[in-house]
Amino acid sequence: MKRILVGQSGGPTAVINSSLYGVIMEAKEQGCEVYGMINGIEGFLEEKYIDLTGQDVDYELLKCTPASYLGSCRYKLPENLNEIVYRLLFEKFKKLAIDIVLYIGGNDSMDTVDKLSRYADEIESDIKFIGIPKTIDNDLVETDHCPGYGSAAKFVAGTVRDVVWDAGVYDRPVVTIVEIMGRHAGWLTAASVLARTEYEKNPLLIYLPEIDFDLSSFLRDVKDALEQSRSVVVCVSEGIKDAAGKLICEYEDESVMDQFGHKMLAGAGKVLEHFIKSSIGCKCRSIELNLPQRCFAQMASAKDIEEAEIVGRTGVAKALKGQSGSMVAMIRAREEGYNISYEMVPVTDVCNLEKKFPSDWIVNGNDISDKFYDYVEPLIQGEHTVEFEGGLPRLLKPAYK
Amino acid sequence: MKRILVGQSGGPTAVINSSLYGVIMEAKEQGCEVYGMINGIEGFLEEKYIDLTGQDVDYELLKCTPASYLGSCRYKLPENLNEIVYRLLFEKFKKLAIDIVLYIGGNDSMDTVDKLSRYADEIESDIKFIGIPKTIDNDLVETDHCPGYGSAAKFVAGTVRDVVWDAGVYDRPVVTIVEIMGRHAGWLTAASVLARTEYEKNPLLIYLPEIDFDLSSFLRDVKDALEQSRSVVVCVSEGIKDAAGKLICEYEDESVMDQFGHKMLAGAGKVLEHFIKSSIGCKCRSIELNLPQRCFAQMASAKDIEEAEIVGRTGVAKALKGQSGSMVAMIRAREEGYNISYEMVPVTDVCNLEKKFPSDWIVNGNDISDKFYDYVEPLIQGEHTVEFEGGLPRLLKPAYK
Repeated sequence: MKRILVGQSGGPTAVINSSLYGVIMEAKEQGCEVYGMINGIEGFLEEKYIDLTGQDVDYELLKCTPASYLGSCRYKLPENLNEIVYRLLFEKFKKLAIDIVLYIGGNDSMDTVDKLSRYADEIESDIKFIGIPKTIDNDLVETDHCPGYGSAAKFVAGTVRDVVWDAGVYDRPVVTIVEIMGRHAGWLTAASVLARTEYEKNPLLIYLPEIDFDLSSFLRDVKDALEQSRSVVVCVSEGIKDAAGKLICEYEDESVMDQFGHKMLAGAGKVLEHFIKSSIGCKCRSIELNLPQRCFAQMASAKDIEEAEIVGRTGVAKALKGQSGSMVAMIRAREEGYNISYEMVPVTDVCNLEKKFPSDWIVNGNDISDKFYDYVEPLIQGEHTVEFEGGLPRLLKPAYK
Repeated sequence: MKRILVGQSGGPTAVINSSLYGVIMEAKEQGCEVYGMINGIEGFLEEKYIDLTGQDVDYELLKCTPASYLGSCRYKLPENLNEIVYRLLFEKFKKLAIDIVLYIGGNDSMDTVDKLSRYADEIESDIKFIGIPKTIDNDLVETDHCPGYGSAAKFVAGTVRDVVWDAGVYDRPVVTIVEIMGRHAGWLTAASVLARTEYEKNPLLIYLPEIDFDLSSFLRDVKDALEQSRSVVVCVSEGIKDAAGKLICEYEDESVMDQFGHKMLAGAGKVLEHFIKSSIGCKCRSIELNLPQRCFAQMASAKDIEEAEIVGRTGVAKALKGQSGSMVAMIRAREEGYNISYEMVPVTDVCNLEKKFPSDWIVNGNDISDKFYDYVEPLIQGEHTVEFEGGLPRLLKPAYK
């Protein structure tokens, strides 16, 4: 009987627990035992783990429980494989008789998988290491998209549409700026384009971090948009920056220190709100969608939940067949319709790289092409039936509580 | 055949359109014609209105369409009833042969109903004026609660619970501050208490504007809470202020001007985030729930939708029986269980007053009593089935588009 160790790392997504569900279910069906690291590799170093096979837990609830059931960490393994931490970790793997380690996470987590797998090669260990992708940023290379992105995109699109409806009710010019997560890649902000309908063209302006942001062009864009529509909704990535590489959210650096002597870092949306108020003088409001983008599980995409589970199951199945040092990737078929196959790619080709939003899908620096629409639309389809109790979604109690 | 004119005013709620639905349906069933003001009384002054009876529109969708279907306004009628605007409005009512005017809104809208009804008395007009309450702030007097509050409370409770789950995943001290709407009344912030479960006591601290806010007590509270729990979630009303009456969100006034010379007004949550970072030094994040509190229709309370419709229907029925100058109030039965009767109260007793959160429901200045739990719990019950199309909720196109 094989023994599997699974961990979650980095920022949560609405479906990171669906991948965990897939791992647990596939492992059980294949007759394996599963242990879960508490707080990722960092917690495991302190021997914090839990037996997931033997628990009397309704794991179905993982599909609509946000955040990381096993807890998380942000822990980067040293570059030098001779560091003692590697020896310690492998001693602990051995002590627990682990055959397979699955790590659910983004870029940094894939780096962890890569290093552990290289160390295993060096010491000729048989332990298999597999990466299970997750990120709302959708910035992992070698995969069509990442589990977690579809649900975040659905939340962003739905919420921006609600905001467009709300912002339009008054009969006077108003600019509403929505700040969306994504420091380096604009995938999530681009999803706001889905909020448009045949009769409602808002958000009229969309700015991604892939394009240099220029305040004077922005001002011109907003003025033009106000000619078209009394209510203008603008969506911006938190990470937009100017041609010199300076983040817009840092434009207040020098002048704005709070009374405690800290930089305000109030966000790009807030900076632009003040800019519009001072330069156009119309009503302006900024909204930061913030954490709910990654933790609002009540509106997760059913397609995303399904794919996240399959990615987890595939990781187990492939490891049992001897794969190691690889990540489960989602490959979209080239033919018509939406068809995903699950294939293994070397994790070393994935870690420490970022997949940017394609520049040819950005129109005029402030809009998104229909090609992106075709890409993203299948990812937000379907709704998972959430179990409510006393008026609120029933969530699974985290393993670390 | 009686002719009804209905308008929506002030900030939207998730169910302001459910009240409109109730008005349209009851009017149709009673054989009346219904016209809708576009952009409230202000738009009507410019003769902007729409025939709601004759339209081929799927009004069922109003139940899950956020914002104000008819558009809104913030327009205060003059105190002096001799001002020309009254004569103009009544000329327009007469021109359209209006018998009944229903106005859906909060405090200011009830003031409009009061003034129009007093003017009608003065000129001996037969037109009936009825107020239909709505507000997420829940601050109208003479009614147990207001349509719109239950849905906002459900969204706040659900989202805070998600944030609590998300904030707890790392194994290190973290303070998360959630800023919730409510400038003068703490009803909505108090609803965050519903996020707690038997095993999760976050949000550990809740501050309402009814209690003077003191930075040093706050610091002590947070330090104590960090002794109890590694992750501390704090919920604050946007309108918290100190003993001198100064808003916490204005604490940066003097020192913080942005590069365009404006006050930052970044919100109470942001101010407290910086305060915690500078005085405790632990990781701290602030989240402003912002507009989605009032416009996220996908998680509206079914009970709230139902009551909002009945309030609208009751307004029509009572006006047809000759009532005027009154608002539909919701009276809760004193016996066990939750039972609401719909009664008329003089609108003059409602307008320009604010119902504060009861001080005896606030515990130690930073917590909420179980009595509030009994009050609020019935208001968030039930989920409305939202119709999705292409992965997103199907919304009704606003009448003003």
